[in-house]
Amino acid sequence: MTDVAARVREVLPSVRADLEALVRIESVWADPARRDEVRRSAEAVSKLLSDAGFGDVRIVSEGGAPAVIAHHPAPPGAPTVLLYAHHDVQPEGDRTQWHSPPFEPTERDGRLYGRGTADDKAGIATHLAAFRAHDGNPPVGVTVFVEGEEESGSPSLGAMLAAHRDELAADVIVIADSDNWSPDLPSLTVSLRGLADCVVEVSTLDHGLHSGMWGGVAPDAVTALVRLLASLHDDDGNVAVAGLHEASAADVDFPAERVRRDAGLLDGVREIGSGSVVQRLWAKPAITVIGIDTTPIASASNTLIPRARARGRAPRSACASLPAVTPANTWRLSPVTSSSTRRGVPG
Amino acid sequence: MTDVAARVREVLPSVRADLEALVRIESVWADPARRDEVRRSAEAVSKLLSDAGFGDVRIVSEGGAPAVIAHHPAPPGAPTVLLYAHHDVQPEGDRTQWHSPPFEPTERDGRLYGRGTADDKAGIATHLAAFRAHDGNPPVGVTVFVEGEEESGSPSLGAMLAAHRDELAADVIVIADSDNWSPDLPSLTVSLRGLADCVVEVSTLDHGLHSGMWGGVAPDAVTALVRLLASLHDDDGNVAVAGLHEASAADVDFPAERVRRDAGLLDGVREIGSGSVVQRLWAKPAITVIGIDTTPIASASNTLIPRARARGRAPRSACASLPAVTPANTWRLSPVTSSSTRRGVPG
Repeated sequence: MTDVAARVREVLPSVRADLEALVRIESVWADPARRDEVRRSAEAVSKLLSDAGFGDVRIVSEGGAPAVIAHHPAPPGAPTVLLYAHHDVQPEGDRTQWHSPPFEPTERDGRLYGRGTADDKAGIATHLAAFRAHDGNPPVGVTVFVEGEEESGSPSLGAMLAAHRDELAADVIVIADSDNWSPDLPSLTVSLRGLADCVVEVSTLDHGLHSGMWGGVAPDAVTALVRLLASLHDDDGNVAVAGLHEASAADVDFPAERVRRDAGLLDGVREIGSGSVVQRLWAKPAITVIGIDTTPIASASNTLIPRARARGRAPRSACASLPAVTPANTWRLSPVTSSSTRRGVPG
Repeated sequence: MTDVAARVREVLPSVRADLEALVRIESVWADPARRDEVRRSAEAVSKLLSDAGFGDVRIVSEGGAPAVIAHHPAPPGAPTVLLYAHHDVQPEGDRTQWHSPPFEPTERDGRLYGRGTADDKAGIATHLAAFRAHDGNPPVGVTVFVEGEEESGSPSLGAMLAAHRDELAADVIVIADSDNWSPDLPSLTVSLRGLADCVVEVSTLDHGLHSGMWGGVAPDAVTALVRLLASLHDDDGNVAVAGLHEASAADVDFPAERVRRDAGLLDGVREIGSGSVVQRLWAKPAITVIGIDTTPIASASNTLIPRARARGRAPRSACASLPAVTPANTWRLSPVTSSSTRRGVPG
C-alpha cells in the first residue's frame, strides 16, 4: 500500500495538469450554445483514458450528452470495479461574482479554483491517478463510466444503462462525485438521501378579483399555497410530515461554527431542525421549496390571485404524503392538485 | 325632486351617447403607446363639460396624466359640491377573453359592456347627467375633477391637489367610482377600507446552497417567507394580526350563493373569514399576498434559495404591525427587512 501511495504522489503533477486542461473546456451541457464544448470534453476524457492504458475506450450517447466508457479486463478470478464521474459542469452564472475566471484553474491558498475543479472533473482525475499509479495494470478489472449530463439531471442515463448493461456490469461501484469530510480527512460516502421532486398547484377562483372588493371573503391561491407550504415544517424547522424514514448518521462532530461558516448563515439566522448536525444533514428527511410560480412583485396589482404553483424537493418517501394533497387542512380548499416525479439519484 | 328625476330620464339618451363615445377612446395610461389617447380623452371630457354649460374648464397636469377641472360658481350662500371621476381605464388584457370588443360599447341583456362603461367613464356620464338635468344651473356650486391616472395609482394626484388646492375646495365631495349594491338598488358608498402596500424581504444565507447537502440544517428564504406569510391569517382565514381596526358594516344580507357566483369560487372552495359577509367585505381588516419574487418553477434547481420577497395589500393600519418584521416567530430569522408605502386612496 505504501508503494501505491508513493506512486500516487509521483503521478499527481501529471494528473493535475490533465485536470487543469479539462477545466479549461466549457462543458456546460445546459447551455445549448456550448454543446460542442461538451463533445470536445468527451473526446479529451477519451484520449486521457486511452493514453493511460485502457485498450477499450468509446464515446457513446443515447440521445443526450456524450459519455465515455473505458474498460480494462480483470485478471483471472479478480473482481471488476466501476469508476463513475461526470465531465459536464454547472453554468458559471454571473462571472463578476467569481474571484478568478471560471474556466481558468487558479490556485489560491493551496486549493484549486475553477468550474469543475471539484465537481466533477476532479473525479475523472482521481480515476486517472489510480490507474496510472498501477502503471495501467491494476490487480482488478476496471470499467470507467464518465457521463456528460449529470448537472442537467441525467435524462438519458437510464437509456444508457440499459443499452450498455453488460459492459457496465461490475462487482463494486465507486462514485467520485461527493465530499470529503474536510481537506485533511479523506472520506468515503456510503449512502445519500434520495430525492423526490413535487409540483403542487392550488386553484381557488375561476378568475382574478379586486383585493379591495373581495379580500377577507374570497380565498386567493397564493395565501392558500403559502399555508400549505408552511405546514411542511414545525416551529423548530423539523419536517412535520408524518411517516418519513430516518436513518442513523455517523457519530462525528460538525461544530455549529463550521455550519455557520460553510453554509453562509447571515448574522442572526439560526440553523433549522433539531438533533445533531450530521443526523440532520445525512439521515433525517428534509423538504425544500425550490420554486414558486405566481405574479412577481413588479407586475403585482390589487388582485386576488386565482392559481399558484410551488415546486419542492423532498426525501423520496415524503412526496406521496405531502399535506398539500389533503385539502382539509387549509380552509378546506379544493381542488388542490399535485404531480410528482421521482428520481433514484442522490439529491 | 320628481322634476329632477324626470329631467334625468330626458337627458339619459344624450348622456349614454356621450358615454359610448368616451368608451371608444383607448385611454390606457399604463400603456405608454396609448398616452396620446389619454390626452384625446381629456379633451373629449373637457368639451363635454364646456358644452354642458361649465364656463371655466381646463386641462391640467403635474407631470402625469392630464386631468380636467371644471367650475360652476355657487349661487350666493349656497355650498359647493366637488364631483370626482377618472377618464383613464385599465389595460384590456387578453382580447380573446372578451365577449365583445373592449373599446366598442355593446349592450347585452340590458347592460352596457366595454372597458370604462362602468369604471369610470360612467362616473363622468353621471356628473354630466346631473348638470344637464339642472339645465346648467344647479342650486349649488359645482366643481368637476376628472383625473387620468387612477388605474395607475394616481402618482401625481398629490401634486395636483397641492397645485389646485383653492380651485378644488368644496363643502361636499361625491366620488363616482364605486358600486351599487345591485342593479335594482342604487347605493351610496360612505366609506371604504384604506390601503397599505408592503414589501417584505427575507434573507437567510449569503449564497445559494445545494438542497441535498444542506437541507434540514440551513434555512432557505422561501420557506421562511412562506411561514411569515402563513402567520397573517388564522385557520378560519381571519386576519391574525392584532390591533387592527374593525368598523361596523351596514345590516344588509349578502347570500352565500351570491358570493360563490359573483366571486367565482371553485367547487369545494369555501369563503374565508367569519362574521357576516358584508362585515368581512367592508368593515374587517383583510390582507392579501399579491406578488412573490423568487425562482419560478421552470428554472428551479436543487438550491436552497437565499433571498425572497413578497408584496402584500392590507388595511392601512395593518402594515406597521406585520408579524413579518418580528423575526422571533420564524425560527428566529433575521435580518428580515420590510418596506412599505401607503396611499390614502381606496384599496
